[in-house]
Order: sequence, then C-alpha cells, then structure tokens
Amino acid sequence: MNYRLLYRLLGMILLIEAGLLFLPLAVALYYGESIGPYIITIALLLLFSSIAILIPQKDKKLYAKEGFVCVGASWILMALFGALPFFISGAIPDYIDAFFECVSGLTTTGASILREVETLPRGILFWRSFTHWIGGMGVLVFMLAIIPADDGRAIYLLRAEVPGPTKGKIVPKIRRTALILYGIYMALTVIMIISLRICKMPWYDSIVNSFATAGTGGFSVKNASIAGYANPAAEWVIGAFMLIFGINFNLLYLIILGKFIDIIKNEELKVYLGILAVAFCIITISTSSSGVSFEQTARQSFFQIASIISTTGFATCDFDLWPFLSKAVLFILMFSGACASSTAGGLKISRIIIIFKNAAREIKHMLRPRSYNVIKFEGEVVDEETVKGCVNYLSIYITIFTLSFLLISHDLDGLSNGFESGITSVAACLNNVGPGFAAVGPSGNYAEYSLFSKIVLSLDMLFGRLEILPMIILVNPQTWKKHL
Amino acid sequence: MNYRLLYRLLGMILLIEAGLLFLPLAVALYYGESIGPYIITIALLLLFSSIAILIPQKDKKLYAKEGFVCVGASWILMALFGALPFFISGAIPDYIDAFFECVSGLTTTGASILREVETLPRGILFWRSFTHWIGGMGVLVFMLAIIPADDGRAIYLLRAEVPGPTKGKIVPKIRRTALILYGIYMALTVIMIISLRICKMPWYDSIVNSFATAGTGGFSVKNASIAGYANPAAEWVIGAFMLIFGINFNLLYLIILGKFIDIIKNEELKVYLGILAVAFCIITISTSSSGVSFEQTARQSFFQIASIISTTGFATCDFDLWPFLSKAVLFILMFSGACASSTAGGLKISRIIIIFKNAAREIKHMLRPRSYNVIKFEGEVVDEETVKGCVNYLSIYITIFTLSFLLISHDLDGLSNGFESGITSVAACLNNVGPGFAAVGPSGNYAEYSLFSKIVLSLDMLFGRLEILPMIILVNPQTWKKHL
Repeated sequence: MNYRLLYRLLGMILLIEAGLLFLPLAVALYYGESIGPYIITIALLLLFSSIAILIPQKDKKLYAKEGFVCVGASWILMALFGALPFFISGAIPDYIDAFFECVSGLTTTGASILREVETLPRGILFWRSFTHWIGGMGVLVFMLAIIPADDGRAIYLLRAEVPGPTKGKIVPKIRRTALILYGIYMALTVIMIISLRICKMPWYDSIVNSFATAGTGGFSVKNASIAGYANPAAEWVIGAFMLIFGINFNLLYLIILGKFIDIIKNEELKVYLGILAVAFCIITISTSSSGVSFEQTARQSFFQIASIISTTGFATCDFDLWPFLSKAVLFILMFSGACASSTAGGLKISRIIIIFKNAAREIKHMLRPRSYNVIKFEGEVVDEETVKGCVNYLSIYITIFTLSFLLISHDLDGLSNGFESGITSVAACLNNVGPGFAAVGPSGNYAEYSLFSKIVLSLDMLFGRLEILPMIILVNPQTWKKHL
Repeated sequence: MNYRLLYRLLGMILLIEAGLLFLPLAVALYYGESIGPYIITIALLLLFSSIAILIPQKDKKLYAKEGFVCVGASWILMALFGALPFFISGAIPDYIDAFFECVSGLTTTGASILREVETLPRGILFWRSFTHWIGGMGVLVFMLAIIPADDGRAIYLLRAEVPGPTKGKIVPKIRRTALILYGIYMALTVIMIISLRICKMPWYDSIVNSFATAGTGGFSVKNASIAGYANPAAEWVIGAFMLIFGINFNLLYLIILGKFIDIIKNEELKVYLGILAVAFCIITISTSSSGVSFEQTARQSFFQIASIISTTGFATCDFDLWPFLSKAVLFILMFSGACASSTAGGLKISRIIIIFKNAAREIKHMLRPRSYNVIKFEGEVVDEETVKGCVNYLSIYITIFTLSFLLISHDLDGLSNGFESGITSVAACLNNVGPGFAAVGPSGNYAEYSLFSKIVLSLDMLFGRLEILPMIILVNPQTWKKHL
C-alpha cells in the first residue's frame, strides 16, 4: 500500500470539499444566516488537507488496491467533515444523525432523519441538497477533470467511482472523459433550474431541487417533498429530468454529438423505456379511482415511477397508501435502478440484462452440453470477466442485504409494520433510493432507528453508491497487512 | 423429444402412486371411513397409467431434456391426481385448493389452505401427511430403486430429483444408490415412529408426524401443529429428527458404514451445525422472558430453528409474535435451508458455501488480477461448471421470487401486514418451508389467497422442490419445438 500517495489524494479531496463549502456559505451570507458552521468546517478541512498534501511523495504509482481504498476512504472522510455544518449549526443535534444525513446526501440516497425541514436555515438546506449534486458524479471524477493525471493510475479511480458493470471511457483520455461527464452534468442541471423557474418555482427552490434531481438524491426543502409545491407543471419537469439523469451519460454525450442512430439501437435504453412503460400502465390502472382526473393519476404514477427507478426518492403523493400491486412494482424498481454510468443507484439495468442473458445461456448449456455461446450486449461480445463480475455482484449484494436486515432487526419492534419498514429501509439505503414503505415511507423518516442501525444503514448507502467493492476492500484486513 | 419413453415413464409413476394410495385406503377402512375417494382415484390412475405404459416403445435412449421434462411433468401429474381424494371426499371443496394442498404435500412444503384439520377423516389426513413422505425422497428415486434401469439414462432422473449443487451417486450403480437412499429414509422413519410412541404419542399421530418430519414437510393433524400435543419430550424428539433429515443422506450412509472421520471433516455439516448454534444463541436470548423456564425457552427456540432450517414448518409456538431479531434469524434460515441431498428445501448450505467462496475469490482476483485459484469444497476442487451452476441458480431463483411476489401482490391488500405476508408467502413456498409470518404465520394459513395466487404459489413450491431447472425446461417453448 502506497500510503503517501493515498494521503495526498485524500488531502486533495478534502481541499475540494473545502472549496465547495463556500457555496452554502455564500447562501447563508445572502440570507443573513450564521456563517460560523461553514467557516469552522472549512478551517478544519484546510488544516487536515494541508497536512496530508504536504507529506513528501516518493513513488507515484497507483495500483487497483490503492484506487479502491482511496475511493472508499474519501467518501467516508467527506461525509465525516460534511456532517459538521449540520452538527455545528444545531440543525441536527446528534453527530451520528448528522453523519447519516450527510452520507445520505453524498451517496444521493435522500433518506432523512429530519422530521421537520422547513424551519431550518437556508444555507444548511442548500448544503444538504448540494451534497447530492457533489455525490452524483463524484468528487474523484471532479478531481480527475481538474487535475492533470497519468491515465494509467487514474483509470482505477474512475472505475471505482462510476457505477455500472462496464466502465468505458467516453474518449481515450481520462481527463477529457471526466470533463465531458461533468460538462453534461452541469449543463443539464442549469437547463433544469431554468425549466423549474419557468414553471414559477422560486429561484432558491429551483436550484436545490435541481441539485437533488441531478444527483438522483431526493432531499427536499419541503416537509411534503415535491407535493409541497402543488405545482403540476414542475412535477412533470422534475419527473422528466429524473428519468434523464437515469440515462447512461455516455449516451447523453452521443446525443450532443448527434449520433441518434446509436441511441435508438441502445439495448439498455430500450429496456429502461420498456420497464417504464410497463410500470406506468400497471400503476396508472391500479391507482386510478373515480373522482380523480386521468391527468392527476397519470402524473402521480409517472412521477413516482421516475423517482423510484432513478432512485431519487422525491414524492408527490404517499405511495405507501397505494394498492399493493403498485407498491410491488415500485419495490422491484428500487432494486433495478436505472442505467449504468448515470447518477442513479440500484443494481443497474445493464447488469440485470447481463445476468439474465447469462442465466439463459446456462440453461441452454444444460440441455445441450456441447453448445456454449458468448453473451452479446449493445452489439458487442461481453467478456467473461464482466459476466462473472455481474453475477458475483449479485451474490455479494444479497449477502450485504441479508446481514443489514439482521443487524437492524432489533429496532423493528418499535416501528409500524416492522418487517415492511425493515426490508424497505435496507432496500432504500442500499439502492440509494431514500424513502421506503411504512415507517420509512414518503411521510415517514429514519429518525426512529437506533444509532447502531443508522451506522449500518449509512454503510449500506456507501456500499450502494460505490458498488460494494471499494468498501469491501477498505474494511478487508488483508488490504492493510503489509505496512509501509 | 422421445415422447413414447416419456409417456411410459409417466405411466409407471402414476402406477406407483396408485399403489401408494392403498395405504390411506387401508387407514380409512380401519377407522370405518368412506373409501370411495381412494377407489375412484386409484381407478383413474390405473386407467391413465395403463394407457401410457401400453404405448409401444422404439428407442430407449433418455437424454437430459427428457429427464428434466419427465421429472417436471411427473410431479405435476402426481399432484393433479393426488388432489382427488381431498376433492372427492369433500374435505377440500375446491379442486384448486385441493391441488395446492397436494402440491404443498408432495413438495414437502406444508403450506395449507385448511383452517380446521382436526375434524377431517383420518384417512384423508393420513394421505395428506403421506404425500410429504412420498415427496421427500421422490417417486422417481423410488422407481429407480425398484425397476432395473440402464445407468446412463437414469442418472438424469436422479440428478433432476435429488436437490443440491453436486449430485454424487453414493455407489457406482444408480439402482443401489436409490435403494440405499430409500433404505436410510425408511429406517429413520421407523426409528422416529417408535421414539414418538415411547414419548406417549398415539400410534396414528406418531406415524403421520414422522412422515411429515421425514419429508421435512410440516403438515400436522392438529390445528395448533405440534403445540397441540403439549408433549415436551415429543417436541425434543421431533426437533432432533427434523435436524437429522436436514443432513446430507450420503453422510448418513457414512455413519452406517462407521466412517466417522469423514463425518467430522465434513464442511457442510460443520457450517450447518455452526448456523444452528448461532441461531440458537440469538433466539434463546432474544425470546427469554421472566416467568418462563429456561428449558421451555430453549426447547421452543431449538424446535422452531430446527423446523425452519430443515424447511419442515412445524410449530410449537407462534413465532410470528417473537421479537423481530428472532424473526429476522428465522427469515434468513428459510432461505439457507439445510444440507444438499437431504429432504430439506431452500438454497442448501453447500450451494451457499460455494457462492461465498466464489465471491471471495473474485474479490481477490480484482486486487491481484494475475491470481486465480480453484475453489475447494469438502477437500476437493469444485469444477467451474458447478460454480457457475450455483451462482446462476441464485439469479434465476431471485427472478422467480420477484415475479411471484409481483403476481400475488394484488391479493395483499386484503391481508394483515400485506407486505410481510406476501414476501414470506413466496419465501415459505419457494423454499418449501410452509408457514411464513403475519397472515401466513403459524396461526394463519393460505386460504385468503385468490385461485390465481394459489396457482402461482403452487408453482413456486414445485420450482423449489425440483430446484427450478426441470420446471423451466418443462415450460420452455424450445423444449417442445421438434415434434415426434
């Protein structure tokens, strides 16, 4: 393990976080709120990052192990520091709660322990929503975009932070890839802010809701989430953008390049749209009732589906009260998530497609033992390493899911519909969705959980956002065996 | 597809079922009950089987496809006919309900739609419990034991019906393997009957409860399941036998041969006992309360754990009322199941071990791309086909689980704790456990489900018992493409 390089990278990330904190500081200044919490946090970040960066470097080689450890450690550190403004300002009096909220923000989960948000300072709410935006594309990708780096070592960072089974670079150069990713991300965010403003949403709300949508996070500045605006036009806009941020960013780049044929041919996108269409039909029919206009039923159905499949977690109605057929559809969408290389969480549709194709191949192989075909995806042969990676991901994912459920189960006796609350809490955190059903449904929150369970669920969010491996490598004792 | 051979095999299976029905017929005669239902069913079975058997044979070759189709079709046919005594006698007025009950019996699930069993004829209850015993080891294995068969073709039948990831023959000859399996099965059943009789359980109850235990089924002749006897000694005996029937029968054979060192070394057994010990500690501590003796707490904990891990489904208390920590442990045990090549359901411990070892290997491989090790299990290298089979099994299993939950979800609005009832219904049926939690808990039943959901859950039970593949191949249109 190259510790000196690791410290330097982590220091640089903390430095970036310090820089990002000037934005909520400016907001707090604008609204005449206390700026102490930001100043203290920035000072601490600068202190630690300067120590880490000033450690002299010897060897600049970055291997897979360092890459994974760096990604895992940087997210935990960012959350530890990012929680400070919530804690120092008194908005969240318990530090573990503040950590939970910040992990939830950075991992773009949107699970909250706050019962009441509308009375909180605007700067704090801005920082809370801004963590979604930071975590959506990832700080390491941001760092790759602004700092020149040797491609060979940087690829591990990109691989570990961008979700999905295959991590293609958009263009040969890592730095340009990172720049393009952030360029699209920023441009779409700006377009969304303007669209919401056109729908007559105030500037502040347009901005924070766009941050939360772009990162597919789901923190809202209203207690009733997006329903609190009672603004149907804005609901359609946010719904549409949630879906857009669930699309593979490589595809969005192709749209900019005008390569529409590649987009129409895209397998993952077809399945994504297919799932959306089926879910929309089932839920619209299942939730329609006399006395409610078709537009309203369709809008609520569309919004909630977009919110769950993109793992954002906004709500315009209490879907926990829907008939179970609709809830079952939403529950399944929590796991599927949206496309790879998007800001959405979940298993990712491309991974599911590969797992299915592999299963079908194995069944064929059992019947005709001499036949053995390659798996094709997006018109190309998927190499067997990727296939293995996908099926393995599933088994590790299930193990983490099971263990988490067991670890939080002692808290479930105190919750309404304990089993439903517990299962969907883990599902909503591990898939970075945010709200689940019952006690953690759209009208509930995670406040009732014990500190221990909150830590377990925080780890689940990190496991989900970083797609497990960096976290496992970070906590694996083998990683730390050979000391510097 | 060799249809003639398929018809002949299916005919022989129906003939065996007709023979087995003479046992409940004798019980009905002994208790002076109506024997009409059995006579009619036997007559129908003989009619159909004689037609099928009399079809002239040409080619005797049996390929993998025919083997799987034969196993899948034979179980469905046996359930269709086996449901007739319940239906004709009026014990279960609806034929779909009777089919559900018979599938539940044969697959050794023990999920019941009956609210009241104590008033039913003794012959009917005998047949209900006897289906567990028949399904536990499987009729095809029985057929292999009594009918001389060419080893090359018969291996496919054995493979498809005996659960677990690796299907070793105990001895080189299939027929002798089948005979040994049935020999152990019968001997243990007889020992159990005598043990229960010694605990002062009446003969009839000793016999039917031993059938249900041997097959790890769980149908009881008391409304309160085994709790209805209020017989602590019998509870310990049944608990112990449930665990024994969850052990790999190959290991039980080694015990008879006196090869105790092989048993001590056995990896799956160690993990099985380890899981039991951990579960026992957690649940005993979690459920202990003042005013209840330690013996009673320990007995209830032991019995329920043995019942769920062996996927039997008997109960001596309403574990649905336990604290959630204990319920979470039981929920996880439902999925693990017991050892391969036992009569238990679930994923099987050996399969889970292989999946874990494979996941660990892949993580190592990611860190050191040049390292690649074989997986060892029970001291031997596991071939990669088996590893693939295990991880694939998991992905197909999850797909079936998810689809089933979606298909039955429209019924959940009418159930108490719909989500919990729904998820555990699918878990209890697909893993052949029987009872779940909430509406389908030990004090509940499956009567509230619609006919459609009952069919879905019946299929789940068959998927679980036959470990998915035979059923998938049976319903796959490709299987039926080339006509005779």
